[in-house]
Amino acid sequence: MAMETRIEQAIFRAIALGQGQDAPPRLAAALPYAVTPGGARIRPTILLSVAKACGDDRPDLADRAAAALELIHCASLVHDDLPCFDDADIRRGKPTVHVAYSQPLAVLTGDSLIVLAFDLLSRAANADAARALGLIRILSCRTGMPHGICAGQGWESETQVNLRAYHRAKTGALFIAATQMGAQAAGQDPEPWTELGARIGEAFQVADDLRDALYDAETLGKPVGQDAMHARPSAVTELGVQGAIRHLRDILGGAIASIPSCPGEAMLAELVRKYAERMTPVAPVQVRA
Amino acid sequence: MAMETRIEQAIFRAIALGQGQDAPPRLAAALPYAVTPGGARIRPTILLSVAKACGDDRPDLADRAAAALELIHCASLVHDDLPCFDDADIRRGKPTVHVAYSQPLAVLTGDSLIVLAFDLLSRAANADAARALGLIRILSCRTGMPHGICAGQGWESETQVNLRAYHRAKTGALFIAATQMGAQAAGQDPEPWTELGARIGEAFQVADDLRDALYDAETLGKPVGQDAMHARPSAVTELGVQGAIRHLRDILGGAIASIPSCPGEAMLAELVRKYAERMTPVAPVQVRA
Repeated sequence: MAMETRIEQAIFRAIALGQGQDAPPRLAAALPYAVTPGGARIRPTILLSVAKACGDDRPDLADRAAAALELIHCASLVHDDLPCFDDADIRRGKPTVHVAYSQPLAVLTGDSLIVLAFDLLSRAANADAARALGLIRILSCRTGMPHGICAGQGWESETQVNLRAYHRAKTGALFIAATQMGAQAAGQDPEPWTELGARIGEAFQVADDLRDALYDAETLGKPVGQDAMHARPSAVTELGVQGAIRHLRDILGGAIASIPSCPGEAMLAELVRKYAERMTPVAPVQVRA
Repeated sequence: MAMETRIEQAIFRAIALGQGQDAPPRLAAALPYAVTPGGARIRPTILLSVAKACGDDRPDLADRAAAALELIHCASLVHDDLPCFDDADIRRGKPTVHVAYSQPLAVLTGDSLIVLAFDLLSRAANADAARALGLIRILSCRTGMPHGICAGQGWESETQVNLRAYHRAKTGALFIAATQMGAQAAGQDPEPWTELGARIGEAFQVADDLRDALYDAETLGKPVGQDAMHARPSAVTELGVQGAIRHLRDILGGAIASIPSCPGEAMLAELVRKYAERMTPVAPVQVRA
């Protein structure tokens, strides 16, 4: 089965767990709304790629891990889009959840997706209890406080920001979760996979900064110029456009070098190269001041 | 060790896991703020009481379960107090989290407490992996969609409300989690403990409706008259004050009758009787229209 199909089916099955005859209909409808359309599904793709590179001997568990990770990512987008954070009206080319459904339902959609991620992992087969618990351990660590995406978002409420901690938590955490959970789902030690995830996350952050500075809203499917508007730290502000592009290439080189020795090493290096091409901006519409 | 001490220490240890040198300081400070002062800690008390009645052979796991459950309860209070829900300024006699820290930090505090609950359970000793996974399964089921407290809160965004599903999810779910998790932590089948939790939850909902209708804000430490103000369904509106008090006593009688046969059966019946006394309102200040 193609990886894209595996991921979409796993997410679909996960969302189905949140539905039920006695469920409040609007919140039930907001859950699939919040996770579609899919975009690149980059985190679950990395997760399944690492699982494959490690043998993928429990594909059901890897699928659950991939879906759980994407649910957490989608939850963070729903909450980040709220009026009290980014106040974004458009996400993936359609109205954000609070615009389409209301603010209370957007808060509850995020909450429900977070819980559903752990629910999904807790339903692993009995034989996989230890691995499933390990997956929950990694996912919770990279989602919450003190080092997960909640912490990353929390830095945006500080007057003095620890930039390294901020980027590592806000963007890096779920990429570290992706590589670690891929290894853990396949029964391998997750620790040696930390650096690959951290470096992909770093690259992604720089690429995101570049897109925010260079692209228009239509191309991106979400508001642009947010970093400048909210005076957020950005690689483009620090290094300039060309400097940021060079920095991005260096990080991706380091990512490839960090891949642990395993049967799927070459395949993973190819995957990172493919993302490198996709992430490096081409034909920017205009450079905004 | 007294049960109150066990619970407070377990919650304190849980909150400490969310702290760290690289954590954003304000969000880190909001976590202990959101879980103190404790109030009755009724859910973890029921959980530990059931665990004791079932032998309590893994007290560390029961402590984690008790703290995790209370973190979820506190998270739900923080999000429910937000301006887009109840817009409450005061909780437990002090400013709510969004008033003391800001709305973004209140959203993130709720998110972080939810994640921390699962984090805590995932750190159970290896020998307890299967039990811990069972605890996560129960807690996620009673927290998220389609039947947990998120679903309960979601019903408040519907124009047509399934009242039974609403109450069972909004108030009942975490009491069912309490009795089921107590049994699960002690290695017993959680299923026979469902009815006790459901009935305590039902009683608690009726008692809450009575307090909201009868008490003043100073006595209660939070705004009152909320049900009438938000036109929410309430046992007092349906049955009148005396009818609601009779209904409460009936439910508690049923709760005691539902306790599964176990060494701690008499102790649990006594606990429910104690809560019954506490829950039944006395000396109401005035009956509001």
